[in-house]
Amino acid sequence: MVDLTTAELHGALEDPALNSMNFLNEVAGQYPDAIQLAAGRPYEGFFDLSDLHRYLRLFCRYLSEGLGLPDDQVRRTVFQYGRTKGIIHQLVATNLELDEGVTVDPESVVVTVGCQEAMFLVLRALRADERDLLLAVSPTYVGLTGAARLVDLPVRPVASGEHGIDLDDLVRVIRQARAAGRRPRACYVMPDFANPSGVRMDTSTRRGLLDVAADEDILLLEDNPYGLFHGEADRLPTLKAMDESRRVVYLGSFAKSVLPGARVGYVVADQRVAAADGSVGLFADQLSKIKSMLTLNTAPIAQAVVGGKLVEQNGSLARANLRERTVYAENLRHVLDGLAKRFPRDANGVAEVSWTAPAGGFFVVVTVPFVVDDRLLERSARDYGVLWTPMHHFYDDGAEVRALRLSCSTVPAAGIEAGLDRLAALVDDELRRLRGTGELL
Amino acid sequence: MVDLTTAELHGALEDPALNSMNFLNEVAGQYPDAIQLAAGRPYEGFFDLSDLHRYLRLFCRYLSEGLGLPDDQVRRTVFQYGRTKGIIHQLVATNLELDEGVTVDPESVVVTVGCQEAMFLVLRALRADERDLLLAVSPTYVGLTGAARLVDLPVRPVASGEHGIDLDDLVRVIRQARAAGRRPRACYVMPDFANPSGVRMDTSTRRGLLDVAADEDILLLEDNPYGLFHGEADRLPTLKAMDESRRVVYLGSFAKSVLPGARVGYVVADQRVAAADGSVGLFADQLSKIKSMLTLNTAPIAQAVVGGKLVEQNGSLARANLRERTVYAENLRHVLDGLAKRFPRDANGVAEVSWTAPAGGFFVVVTVPFVVDDRLLERSARDYGVLWTPMHHFYDDGAEVRALRLSCSTVPAAGIEAGLDRLAALVDDELRRLRGTGELL
Repeated sequence: MVDLTTAELHGALEDPALNSMNFLNEVAGQYPDAIQLAAGRPYEGFFDLSDLHRYLRLFCRYLSEGLGLPDDQVRRTVFQYGRTKGIIHQLVATNLELDEGVTVDPESVVVTVGCQEAMFLVLRALRADERDLLLAVSPTYVGLTGAARLVDLPVRPVASGEHGIDLDDLVRVIRQARAAGRRPRACYVMPDFANPSGVRMDTSTRRGLLDVAADEDILLLEDNPYGLFHGEADRLPTLKAMDESRRVVYLGSFAKSVLPGARVGYVVADQRVAAADGSVGLFADQLSKIKSMLTLNTAPIAQAVVGGKLVEQNGSLARANLRERTVYAENLRHVLDGLAKRFPRDANGVAEVSWTAPAGGFFVVVTVPFVVDDRLLERSARDYGVLWTPMHHFYDDGAEVRALRLSCSTVPAAGIEAGLDRLAALVDDELRRLRGTGELL
Repeated sequence: MVDLTTAELHGALEDPALNSMNFLNEVAGQYPDAIQLAAGRPYEGFFDLSDLHRYLRLFCRYLSEGLGLPDDQVRRTVFQYGRTKGIIHQLVATNLELDEGVTVDPESVVVTVGCQEAMFLVLRALRADERDLLLAVSPTYVGLTGAARLVDLPVRPVASGEHGIDLDDLVRVIRQARAAGRRPRACYVMPDFANPSGVRMDTSTRRGLLDVAADEDILLLEDNPYGLFHGEADRLPTLKAMDESRRVVYLGSFAKSVLPGARVGYVVADQRVAAADGSVGLFADQLSKIKSMLTLNTAPIAQAVVGGKLVEQNGSLARANLRERTVYAENLRHVLDGLAKRFPRDANGVAEVSWTAPAGGFFVVVTVPFVVDDRLLERSARDYGVLWTPMHHFYDDGAEVRALRLSCSTVPAAGIEAGLDRLAALVDDELRRLRGTGELL
């Protein structure tokens, strides 16, 4: 007997965006021995249980010796319900100062349950009525699209181009939306080694984007989980570091730079908001009100673990992540070299299979001459023993996509070699099959 | 210069329900030396930092020795992104079996960022369109009202009566709503020592409520943070334990039984849901999809701490909370005796001030012959040094309320005595002032 139907539940539950995560996790769960080139999970070789205990102790010592709290207040800070905006906001502000050159008032920081909650808070706040729209560079992280679905906020794609965002297209989309009576509120971007494209915006594109945001009066939601993993390339300034008029809401994550298992992220929202009673406060305080009804506060224990690592590293995670940065850079090199070896150009210099060559981050996008759908992924997992992500999950229009995303973050070099062998076998078989049926373009 | 106005943001941000938490926290923060009879926070005397380390170690040992995971998988479970529905679902199911006599499939459990996220997930799922309504026994926990605001789900009050819910009123509200074309989806109840009323439903009321839910085809959202703290009274079966037709969605919290600082709660959602493609699954899996776009998963580190305590206690928290239960029962006795001493009946047996006498839980409601508003609380904090909660925060209609809520969970006996002295002084001064102006009823 059935108790409910999805027809009586929120529409998002039948939406492909909300099923993406589930589907991808399910396939991975069903084929645990398949090589994991799908998940953008951090490298596990440095995980050490004793770190957790040390971080907890360091954070408690910071509370007592650094902030001068008596013992009962140290215990209260870690055990009890806490400040809605978080207890490591000062450490986060120091980290932003040291690693990103971003100076923020700690009061404008809301510590969140991972970056995912940060996105949700901002989208919930910005979606006032059915006129509101969100813009996002396409392809887009599916977690953004999913969060937008939960608040019934449509997401309009903006072309990426080769520089990470096509500014002419951005202006066009904004003006078209306004002409149609809609209200484009913000554009979501990942300027550093975007998920899934791997593309990094150059500095002049960043500057141009800030100018468009000011001219067209929209906010920019800057998500930056991969900035620290810039391989051999120099770092570029974040949008927030270049933001002189509070156009940028900055979404931060400690999932890759400390550990995912703490589920600690944050949002910097220093925009000034006027309330109906005439008072003016920080956008962070509006987000905090939403958070108070969503998760109350981010687990102080989890914040303490992240805070302890920040304390240990004197606030900087760039230096602490040198070894991770090296691993990711080497893995990325392995993936790129491995692809070149397995998919050589023919005598005429023509390539049937092509791929991006990002300077950093976790992701490489491989373009193939056939449609990459979920059934192909299932076949790949079952018959070839390799997992990757069909790129159609990152587009919101349901169109067929001839590309897949490889992640080089989790699997060590030998695994990458084996995984690419398996992928090459799948691609070769697929090409042969399609040539046989005459379906190949 | 202003960047945004609340008029362009989601309407909930100007709603009194969302400002309640903020306001109450602000007053508490402004007067840190005032005696805390406001917050429903657990007693702090048993907080011990070494517990955290022991729980973490116990949980890791459970993973390796209990579940037979190799070391790398133990580390992965605690450090990495994890299962959306959580990693302590089996321990939660055991706990429900032992402490609540509730048998559930662990797959129907979603571990959440506190009970607040559990409420949000359920309300987000149930709010399909503008016809949907939530019912709640009034007065209601403000976190429920706030979560409903975030998904634009109206909350209709149901009378409490002396047994915790007036079943005739419930039927009336449901039928009236249906007659008006609305869709009442569920009724939120706290059958055990409700926040804020302290009222406990007797067993026949519980049975009657389940019957009404079945007859009128609505769900019951049972929230049970205080069930373990039943003082000298026997425990009564939860609705979920009596639920034979999957009418009850059970909302659980470890904030009081383990610690708030882990922010770990859960929802049991064993309802069977038919999807558009004809497949049938658990309501828990629909909630999991929402969670995957809200917080991804509950911090494994925080789950590990709670899981470690469950492991240490062989799954039962009833025995582990005997000392807490004793403290709360003694404090409650102090509050009730202290009120009787300070507000005696006059020679005719008439009482100007009256109060509830719950058998357990954290809260006593004091009724006074004058309106209790936020300004009175501010005066109480500033001039009298005592904090309590104006009851109007728990009503959704903006009407004036002549009552306040006292919490007896945090402050030890001596503090309760001093706090009640200060409250009595405030009440006496207020009565004198109002008699002087002739405003007293």
